[in-house]
Amino acid sequence: MIEQIATQAKKASISLAALSSQKKNSALSSIIQALSDNEDAIITANQADLEQAQRDTIKDALLKRLKFDAAKLKDSIEGIRSLIALPDPVGTTLDCTELDKGLELYRVSSPIGVLGIVFESRPDALIQISTLALKSGNAVLLKGGSEAAQTNRVLADTISKASSQAGLPKDWMALLESRADVKAMLALDEYIDLVIPRGSNAFVKYIMDNTRIPVLGHTEGICHLFIDRDADMEKAIRIAYDSKCQYPAACNAIETLLVDKTIAVSFLPRIQKEYEKGSVELRGDKSTREIIDCAPATEEDWHTEYLDLILSIRLVDGIDEAIEHINTYGSRHTDAIVSEDAKKARTFIELIDSADVFWNCSTRFSDGFRYGLGAEVGISTNKIHARGPVGLEGLLTYKWKLIGKGHIVADYSGADSRPFTHKKLEKKFGSS
Amino acid sequence: MIEQIATQAKKASISLAALSSQKKNSALSSIIQALSDNEDAIITANQADLEQAQRDTIKDALLKRLKFDAAKLKDSIEGIRSLIALPDPVGTTLDCTELDKGLELYRVSSPIGVLGIVFESRPDALIQISTLALKSGNAVLLKGGSEAAQTNRVLADTISKASSQAGLPKDWMALLESRADVKAMLALDEYIDLVIPRGSNAFVKYIMDNTRIPVLGHTEGICHLFIDRDADMEKAIRIAYDSKCQYPAACNAIETLLVDKTIAVSFLPRIQKEYEKGSVELRGDKSTREIIDCAPATEEDWHTEYLDLILSIRLVDGIDEAIEHINTYGSRHTDAIVSEDAKKARTFIELIDSADVFWNCSTRFSDGFRYGLGAEVGISTNKIHARGPVGLEGLLTYKWKLIGKGHIVADYSGADSRPFTHKKLEKKFGSS
Repeated sequence: MIEQIATQAKKASISLAALSSQKKNSALSSIIQALSDNEDAIITANQADLEQAQRDTIKDALLKRLKFDAAKLKDSIEGIRSLIALPDPVGTTLDCTELDKGLELYRVSSPIGVLGIVFESRPDALIQISTLALKSGNAVLLKGGSEAAQTNRVLADTISKASSQAGLPKDWMALLESRADVKAMLALDEYIDLVIPRGSNAFVKYIMDNTRIPVLGHTEGICHLFIDRDADMEKAIRIAYDSKCQYPAACNAIETLLVDKTIAVSFLPRIQKEYEKGSVELRGDKSTREIIDCAPATEEDWHTEYLDLILSIRLVDGIDEAIEHINTYGSRHTDAIVSEDAKKARTFIELIDSADVFWNCSTRFSDGFRYGLGAEVGISTNKIHARGPVGLEGLLTYKWKLIGKGHIVADYSGADSRPFTHKKLEKKFGSS
Repeated sequence: MIEQIATQAKKASISLAALSSQKKNSALSSIIQALSDNEDAIITANQADLEQAQRDTIKDALLKRLKFDAAKLKDSIEGIRSLIALPDPVGTTLDCTELDKGLELYRVSSPIGVLGIVFESRPDALIQISTLALKSGNAVLLKGGSEAAQTNRVLADTISKASSQAGLPKDWMALLESRADVKAMLALDEYIDLVIPRGSNAFVKYIMDNTRIPVLGHTEGICHLFIDRDADMEKAIRIAYDSKCQYPAACNAIETLLVDKTIAVSFLPRIQKEYEKGSVELRGDKSTREIIDCAPATEEDWHTEYLDLILSIRLVDGIDEAIEHINTYGSRHTDAIVSEDAKKARTFIELIDSADVFWNCSTRFSDGFRYGLGAEVGISTNKIHARGPVGLEGLLTYKWKLIGKGHIVADYSGADSRPFTHKKLEKKFGSS
């Protein structure tokens, strides 16, 4: 069953990859129209999901995420409109090299193929993900949170119908309905090219352990802020507060604050007062607790992503110890230094092995929209393919296209072999 | 034991990533010197390996690959010299965006970290791989063929000593000695960032199935050539011959020839005569065998990478059937069309789902050196990270570097939020 869905999606992905920008944008417009037309059905389905969730006594935070009303639909439609306005990421000539006279090599951006995306309870994620896939020419298998099953079914039907009426191959998207479906999908590396899981650490790790398909995503966000002895105190206070409190449940909020010993006596009492206003629970190492009163931090704390108003604090001897701590305990997500010493900042930036390394600004900036990527596919702590906040280009690969006039390799090997010219050209593929 | 080696390599990779181009190039020069100085010891070790291999009655082809003499050492040294001449791939600013006044985001190329590379019996592979890793700032764990154990040990010692004397962190490279070591390495996803296996299909699949670490490589090269009805016959003959015979053991040689029915009667007898000169065994489908005399091809043949002077032939109704065959049976490596019809060629290039898609030239051009990549790390049939022939940039990732003046996210959210400017800048990181 899932294998059949995946086979059809693979087939659909071939023609989807060759679709013109105009066709893709007109399908996106049809989707906007269909979502507006089906507003009542969507909201009714969502109310059924909400009622079921209340019967299942689901937490308030989750209920809030599950809710999909007229305002959220409007936001989603706004999102599709900005996607239409973005340039088509497919078909861009990234390089052109003349290998010899009449033998030209083009490297051209192209869709990855079939994506398998597993996402959390927010129904707006379904709209965002499927339209990102469409814009980038990828087929997609989607699995949303089971709490949102009815909403997701109406949304997927609406998007699927509207897009196939607009000329897209009808199997380019499919909704998976159960955990068993996800498990079956993970075995289909022949048809599915990339899996993007959004969810808890345990869930992402489960996916990574159970598939041969490449996985794009981050498991944890254990982010750090280091206050150097040459920090400007006002900046340090502002940034330390923002990095923890602006939205503590985000993966780019800090979990550990590292402070140079030399300035701890003046800095710690001040930041403690700020954090008290934000109701942050502090956990300090031994030397921290000699200066301010707080709970003790254990080894466990340095490894923990609280995603909550809790912060561990450790005093360090200087920048080297800070770097050592971050590279040991961090999750290679986002780490920052506050310092007025450019040389030390530079050292920190070079030696921290993380996707995002910041100087004198909040770790909370680590985000696709703030980076101006147009749309965010996710944040990656992988080191290959895409790293940090990932925009549409994370859903692309490239194809090598070589155009000859009867050229053969025998002419370029052995004695009397012709040399290659390997000349970079400013040509675009298809420009003749 | 292996975990300790990997931990040390991870540590070394941090300082290696920040090393200047000059330091890396001077280490490469020291390696050249040390290899020349140790020529005798290297060749003696290789002779011991060769004698052992003869006692183990290893095949001639393998013996030839195993042999490492003065001429091969000279070639390897030439390779290092060209590597020194290449620009440093690390530290290139790929993008710069102003997020707001004084808040600048740089995306800068950086090493991946620690590579685990498992390669075949050629000892020159050890030199090539370790120096590619060095140039790209990556630490590397290496495992070569067991037949070359003694040669590899001398080479690894020579390179390791010369580079640490030149100031590289001493644990940046390590030689693994057994299959058990490789197995242990595959579990160390915390320290190793990318595995590159070079070897048989079965071996690469074994690696993919047994690690959570991303794998770069290709499992098979089932490449096709399609002769369209509008092909120029002379080009078709030349390209068909070259694609199969120029080096049949290569992954980019064709395994299946697809011929448009309309031209089969004139084309097949001619190409058969050519292939006879090259001692190619032909296996045809039913309609092929109605035109020329050859063995029958079965379903199995379309799935087979012969890596030998054997070729399967199938007649097709036209370009659509050719594309369908290739996307069904191919391995997404390299496929080509011969045609004088630009529109059909364009369709073929767009709809074939392979890393390398060619028009009117031999599939054998699919190669890092022919593409002018400077150095070839391998060929990838992955769709993420790197696709097709992979040069040094396949060993790189990027880091996001954000430089502020005390900027916090709270100022950019809620009512009265500051807008982002998201202005592209032509600045390089570090240019102030």
